[in-house]
Amino acid sequence: MPTIVVEVMPKPEILDPQGKAIANALPHLGFTSFAGVRQGKRFELTVEGEVTDEVLESARTAAAEMLSNPVIEDVVSVSVKEDI
Amino acid sequence: MPTIVVEVMPKPEILDPQGKAIANALPHLGFTSFAGVRQGKRFELTVEGEVTDEVLESARTAAAEMLSNPVIEDVVSVSVKEDI
Repeated sequence: MPTIVVEVMPKPEILDPQGKAIANALPHLGFTSFAGVRQGKRFELTVEGEVTDEVLESARTAAAEMLSNPVIEDVVSVSVKEDI
Repeated sequence: MPTIVVEVMPKPEILDPQGKAIANALPHLGFTSFAGVRQGKRFELTVEGEVTDEVLESARTAAAEMLSNPVIEDVVSVSVKEDI
């Protein structure tokens, strides 16, 4: 069944304590190449039947209104993944 | 600065209560096209300097050992996003 992938990240101006904690821990574990880490969310919406424009539009609306908090998060991507 | 995006999802055989809750709520809000929802994580690792093969390998290791729990999660993608 086809899947729509929705990706949500905290807005750049919003503090991200989880990302910060990971960024602080990385050098202690030998990972020294990374200047910063931000943690967001990834949703997979399984679609019944075909991904029509209407379904994709519905996913965009759900992403904006339900899967993300527009005050603190941005929807960075809504894309279709043809699945097995 | 370039960014490495790491995507992590719960393994298919693992229950995902957050995804389930979203899937149950969607129809009540008028979103009826989706048969299921899974919720995972998306990390953005900011790279100091260039993304060499070594840095990408280091990101893959961090994704497998630190950003995901291999017992219950799969790393579904480690990719480079050339950023502004």
